[in-house]
Amino acid sequence: MAGWSVASEALRRNLSPDVELAARLFDELRQRSFDGVGITREAYGPGERMAHALARREAEALGLEVSADPVGNLHMTLPGQDRVAKRVLLGSHLDSVPQGGNFDGAAGVLAGLAAVAGLKRAGFTPARDITVIATRAEEAGAWFPTSYPGSRGALGRLKPEELQVKRQDSGRSLADHMREEGFDPDFAARGETLITPENAAAFLEVHIEQGPVLDSEGIPVGIVTGIPGSRRLRQGRVLGEYNHSGGTPRRYRRDAAIALAELAVALDEEWARLEAHGHRLVCTFCTLATTAEAGFTKIAGEATFMLDVRSVNPASVDAIFAELARQVPAIEARRGVRFDLGAETGSVAAPMDAGLRAGLARAAEATGVRTLEMASGGGHDAAAFAAAGIPSAMLFVRNQNGSHNPHEAMRMEDFAEACTVVTRWLAEAAG
Amino acid sequence: MAGWSVASEALRRNLSPDVELAARLFDELRQRSFDGVGITREAYGPGERMAHALARREAEALGLEVSADPVGNLHMTLPGQDRVAKRVLLGSHLDSVPQGGNFDGAAGVLAGLAAVAGLKRAGFTPARDITVIATRAEEAGAWFPTSYPGSRGALGRLKPEELQVKRQDSGRSLADHMREEGFDPDFAARGETLITPENAAAFLEVHIEQGPVLDSEGIPVGIVTGIPGSRRLRQGRVLGEYNHSGGTPRRYRRDAAIALAELAVALDEEWARLEAHGHRLVCTFCTLATTAEAGFTKIAGEATFMLDVRSVNPASVDAIFAELARQVPAIEARRGVRFDLGAETGSVAAPMDAGLRAGLARAAEATGVRTLEMASGGGHDAAAFAAAGIPSAMLFVRNQNGSHNPHEAMRMEDFAEACTVVTRWLAEAAG
Repeated sequence: MAGWSVASEALRRNLSPDVELAARLFDELRQRSFDGVGITREAYGPGERMAHALARREAEALGLEVSADPVGNLHMTLPGQDRVAKRVLLGSHLDSVPQGGNFDGAAGVLAGLAAVAGLKRAGFTPARDITVIATRAEEAGAWFPTSYPGSRGALGRLKPEELQVKRQDSGRSLADHMREEGFDPDFAARGETLITPENAAAFLEVHIEQGPVLDSEGIPVGIVTGIPGSRRLRQGRVLGEYNHSGGTPRRYRRDAAIALAELAVALDEEWARLEAHGHRLVCTFCTLATTAEAGFTKIAGEATFMLDVRSVNPASVDAIFAELARQVPAIEARRGVRFDLGAETGSVAAPMDAGLRAGLARAAEATGVRTLEMASGGGHDAAAFAAAGIPSAMLFVRNQNGSHNPHEAMRMEDFAEACTVVTRWLAEAAG
Repeated sequence: MAGWSVASEALRRNLSPDVELAARLFDELRQRSFDGVGITREAYGPGERMAHALARREAEALGLEVSADPVGNLHMTLPGQDRVAKRVLLGSHLDSVPQGGNFDGAAGVLAGLAAVAGLKRAGFTPARDITVIATRAEEAGAWFPTSYPGSRGALGRLKPEELQVKRQDSGRSLADHMREEGFDPDFAARGETLITPENAAAFLEVHIEQGPVLDSEGIPVGIVTGIPGSRRLRQGRVLGEYNHSGGTPRRYRRDAAIALAELAVALDEEWARLEAHGHRLVCTFCTLATTAEAGFTKIAGEATFMLDVRSVNPASVDAIFAELARQVPAIEARRGVRFDLGAETGSVAAPMDAGLRAGLARAAEATGVRTLEMASGGGHDAAAFAAAGIPSAMLFVRNQNGSHNPHEAMRMEDFAEACTVVTRWLAEAAG
């Protein structure tokens, strides 16, 4: 990092983020992406397009250099004195899950704009470029069966075949949707890399906490130690046999519903055992359902499920999948059913950079913001940056009511505390 | 019973059912109610209407007296010498579950027509009337949340408020659907009774076995000992909280999916325990599903289920519901969810008449048909007749692939064996 070469300590002390700007943008985003129940900003679709246009408008009004890269990420740069020095990046995504909340993702982009606007307002010119980045399709999990296609595209880590995954509602490929939004998916195929460890000094992502930990602990801001890796089954099926629920004795049944319930309970019990032995992980049957053919007086002949297992520690995730591998043949033999697990997807765990975490802790201490060191529960773009070898860090903002639902409820005063830490940290990291 | 007053033993020996008539009607029924996957004959709807018209046409061609009663059951009578003696009834229903099979229900009506046609062909005039009855809406469970509205209507046991239940697809009441088919639901409200112990000597229902027992045992015909009673939850719900599947640690979750899986497994284990202690019952989660709001990266905030518990022994059913009552508050406390069990429906167990069973066993022995005494798994119209005090009995016909699915596969030679028993029994019971 550059140390304190440009700004005086007095100037740094007077820096403050433009939280009003962020508050205004949150309101506008909410108004323009409310779907009647929650917030929907489709990845590479109308909602995300709207949010990127809104961010571009504000960045241009702030006088930042604005450009979209070939996969659609928006780069909004406050030029530094040395234009070729490694830049500092900060940001997050602007898409959402269907019927999600307004803050998940957007908080990171708006924190970046609020901090940079605060620097400009104070007349602070950084030593190196500061780029606020709005990535694309971080919620790809809800739209396309792949992870972080936006940030991984810019980082040169999106494989061409991943562009062929089909969007779950439209049935069309990620590449098609990128092209429709005016971008160039062939960029990924050409193996080009926009953001590298040679041109990026750091990536910071501000994000609402997606769990209840900060709220329960009464602390506004978290400094993230690492992002979990995952193993996921999105198209699990259990195949049994439809039969009359009255006329089929127990020993003749091939009941897909009870077989699936048994698997779910077995993995949940394994999770509890692992936790009792000190593992930290989550194991979720996001869906679990008999199909439309099921109905009253029938034994279910088919059921489907989505399984999501995550931990910063890969061994914890693997322990659940080992139990899955033990349970499936046992249940198949006992219940006369067959499991079709479908394709497995996943992501690798990403520890956050120790130097950046220390810098964020110093910035928080200097500004009097209370923080808690904590693991992330969810995956984030920062995992993609870390995997690409770019020192990465995250700040969590306390948030009530979880995320990926319409009721997420970050308080603006907590968001302001995070922005204060970011602004102070930028003055050091890019100063 | 009347003994052997009219027919000579030689004539009785030469009686045989008109199985070809039944085979032809099975074919026509299949052609006219195939839905692309299986057979659909909607209760008080087009499919059932078609089947009743077909039965009426055949009965008229046979020279039977034909009439529909106010709730739509079709009565097809071979007059006896004594028109005021208690009549013998036999039959079943002509509706089906959606995407069901061709034999469930229809076999009983066509066995009745085949037997009566056989009697007529042989010039056999019974001492008392024999009425083949095609009931309505026996598969009401699949269409309306009530049991046996057709037979119970004729038996004066359908309560007026039961006519207000809504059909699950149309949302309109049973009374409306009856009226639309040209019948008179007010008949039930007036408390009139068509079939009573004073005018009916017996009711016999031939039905495919809805389980695999006869096929496994290698025996074509079953003599049913009793019909199970049931307790049912059709609109069970589990209410939890949608949250991010990565960011919400175990102790903060309110996961409706795993709570429901846990209940299903607990009741299944209780079923296994009861069976080990000699209970005979079935316990089925016919459906079990997270709702449309669930999806990847979410913890499920809601799930629904249908539970169907049946036994000839009410204590066995009650034992499952007692376990349900223990489990629900325990799971609610442990998982932070709330169960909404919805309304409970059900039916009372019905033992079959010992005298009729003995008569059927004699008829089978006299005609060389091998039979097995067995409990019914499913509920049947015969349960309604038995509950009304009319001596009732059932014959099961061996059937491959279960029922309530498109693959039910009764063999015509097994059906013919049952018809042979029925014809012989009629010659005795109505002779």
